[in-house]
Amino acid sequence: MRMVDIIERKRNGAELTKEELHTFIEGYTKGEIPDYQASAFLMATYFNGMTAKEQATFALEMLHSGDEVDLSLILGIKVDKHSTGGVGDKTSIPLAPMIAALDILIPMISGRGLGHTGGTLDKLEAIPGFKVELSEAEFIQQVKDINLAIISATGNIAPADKKLYALRDVTATVDSIPLIAGSIMSKKIASGTDALVLDVKTGSGAFMKTQEKAKAMVEIGKNVGMRCMAVISDMNQPLGNTIGNTLEIEESIEILKGNGPKDITDLVLTLGSQMVVLAGKAETLEQAREMLIEVLVNGKALEKFGAMIEAQGGDRNIIDDHSLMPQAKYQISIKAPKAGYISKMTADELGVASMLLGGGRQSKEDTINYAVGLRLHKKVGERVEKDEELVTVYSDQKDIEQVEKLILYNIEIGEKTNAVPLIHEIIK
Amino acid sequence: MRMVDIIERKRNGAELTKEELHTFIEGYTKGEIPDYQASAFLMATYFNGMTAKEQATFALEMLHSGDEVDLSLILGIKVDKHSTGGVGDKTSIPLAPMIAALDILIPMISGRGLGHTGGTLDKLEAIPGFKVELSEAEFIQQVKDINLAIISATGNIAPADKKLYALRDVTATVDSIPLIAGSIMSKKIASGTDALVLDVKTGSGAFMKTQEKAKAMVEIGKNVGMRCMAVISDMNQPLGNTIGNTLEIEESIEILKGNGPKDITDLVLTLGSQMVVLAGKAETLEQAREMLIEVLVNGKALEKFGAMIEAQGGDRNIIDDHSLMPQAKYQISIKAPKAGYISKMTADELGVASMLLGGGRQSKEDTINYAVGLRLHKKVGERVEKDEELVTVYSDQKDIEQVEKLILYNIEIGEKTNAVPLIHEIIK
Repeated sequence: MRMVDIIERKRNGAELTKEELHTFIEGYTKGEIPDYQASAFLMATYFNGMTAKEQATFALEMLHSGDEVDLSLILGIKVDKHSTGGVGDKTSIPLAPMIAALDILIPMISGRGLGHTGGTLDKLEAIPGFKVELSEAEFIQQVKDINLAIISATGNIAPADKKLYALRDVTATVDSIPLIAGSIMSKKIASGTDALVLDVKTGSGAFMKTQEKAKAMVEIGKNVGMRCMAVISDMNQPLGNTIGNTLEIEESIEILKGNGPKDITDLVLTLGSQMVVLAGKAETLEQAREMLIEVLVNGKALEKFGAMIEAQGGDRNIIDDHSLMPQAKYQISIKAPKAGYISKMTADELGVASMLLGGGRQSKEDTINYAVGLRLHKKVGERVEKDEELVTVYSDQKDIEQVEKLILYNIEIGEKTNAVPLIHEIIK
Repeated sequence: MRMVDIIERKRNGAELTKEELHTFIEGYTKGEIPDYQASAFLMATYFNGMTAKEQATFALEMLHSGDEVDLSLILGIKVDKHSTGGVGDKTSIPLAPMIAALDILIPMISGRGLGHTGGTLDKLEAIPGFKVELSEAEFIQQVKDINLAIISATGNIAPADKKLYALRDVTATVDSIPLIAGSIMSKKIASGTDALVLDVKTGSGAFMKTQEKAKAMVEIGKNVGMRCMAVISDMNQPLGNTIGNTLEIEESIEILKGNGPKDITDLVLTLGSQMVVLAGKAETLEQAREMLIEVLVNGKALEKFGAMIEAQGGDRNIIDDHSLMPQAKYQISIKAPKAGYISKMTADELGVASMLLGGGRQSKEDTINYAVGLRLHKKVGERVEKDEELVTVYSDQKDIEQVEKLILYNIEIGEKTNAVPLIHEIIK
């Protein structure tokens, strides 16, 4: 079987067989199929897509290209959650301890930030001493002991995906549903979870495409025998009131205390209810939600968070004393230039503002400043008076003229508008 | 300007600018843009095509990537002909001397066979001593002296095309009109001709695509100020009655004596008339045709052919004594298995039969046996009786069982059908 014939068949819109996808993924992982054939394949896939069957096979072949985490030593249903990522999205950090507090196992393998802002692992590393690199044995032991762990991928998980991801980035083939879905799902399947809730973000005008992507991922999950569903949630404005690593850990603690912002608390409860039901711990979503609220109220979820910090080498005293985490030198207020209602807050651009302060990576090699970030005092739909504080900037430099301009440019004050609904659709 | 952005714009169906195409072609030729980006670009072009303007720019950029032949030292209109190639196509060999005999300059840079059978240069090399590698100075001097030369490309002509051609071959991106047209035209423009007649072959069911390809090439030629037109001719059966190098030189001599097979003589006169008109030597095609017939009848065309052989180091005595060219050991008759009319002769497969005898290359490194080949005694539409000779096989081996089977399998004898028209369309 020649790679050029496989490319040609994909180019002509044929459904590729398991053998063809295997030949490609195995050959490419081993370096026997060159990048230039892989990129022609990716572009042909960009144009012609893949059937549901091909997508599942493609994801499985990427999974089989490397190591898998063997969670069979942990008895019981294991659940996981994956977010397609967004500015201010700290959902996993309060959610995982809430789930664990209900005696559901949540062995979470998470990622670093690829976009403007830090990812879940970066945020956790704002906690002094917190280790995200555990061995597989330590990982399994911790989940057995306290039901939860959030770690970085270890070993050689889906190396084909790693190579293809890098290639897609330089060949304008990132934005393809089967490639996106295959990339995410190959890693999630490799992490050995039984049930998966996908938190899929949608921005303005992207809903149709997001819906298609969510469906593709759920389909792949089901095809490999996983309990899988997706929640499509809004990403037109940042999630919660903070952007930046220390600030987002603080906000996560507030959520765990039951004092979190309404939008992100609601998303955490929505995603969490689905996870509890998928895990078989509740019959209905309403019941699951009640259970989750209970572990917030009785402090069990916060206790789990503390236990996880301790188990992973961090200082759990940060829960009561936030100043133990890296603190920015300056807190600078940005005031509203006029009165009105917040009509728009561009999430991506506010993420860029935080990155410019040092809170995210411009390239893979950059180090993150955990202390810096933004605190939003208003969200879309809220009233603001002239000179009222809009945003507090946490910065290590005093001169933030550029960042201030960028922030003001991306927060529109206008007529009264309705707040955007946070949850758009549930896909099962 | 980043290559990934150029790929993305082509992927999105945008019309690329001169600067973008220049960045790609220059960067790729220099090895600064890697194959994997070029192949993604090629696949995006396969799907989205190019506008007429882009195609012309693309061809010119490939041309500018290397050397050009400077024919400005030769005064007068220089004409050339390019064929997309076909089995039994020896058109250039009689045509070039006919044109030269009318005092039109024809500096022809030709190619080797890429498909099953030899190209024009391979055929000429069946003539003992004939050299196809001339220096540019020798080439120009010969055209000044006798109006014509047929040589192999020298120097570094369109290196971008050479690299891209090899890449297309292994990435399933050969079959794209802008890429095909750009590849051919960049080389033809580089050879410095003023007027060009394209002989574009079409097979069964491929007419629409062929028409589109021919139009694209003519458009590119006109865009760079060349007098350019295309003749779409049939390639459902082999052209003329012979396939194989020595045999095709013999047939070319017959054409030059006015005794050639009807189909190829007609094609030579059709293409030639267009060339004579493009060169401004005749007002009408009818007048041009008369002039060409005259140089066949009065022997001037044959004399030019002899002069070219002599100028390029060959033995012109082959004209009167064909046995001076390589001769096959055996001539084996293939007889008609039944009576009827020839309803089909698959050109490509008969080309493969000749290649299996040694008359063409399976891979670039193969050497050619000039002596072997096929002589067809019947063409489509002709009556044949049972056991009448259909084909004579010229072979150096006695056992030709496989080849005989292949030949009989690809010549259908059936009901009376009309002969296929040879010229389908003229595109200006």
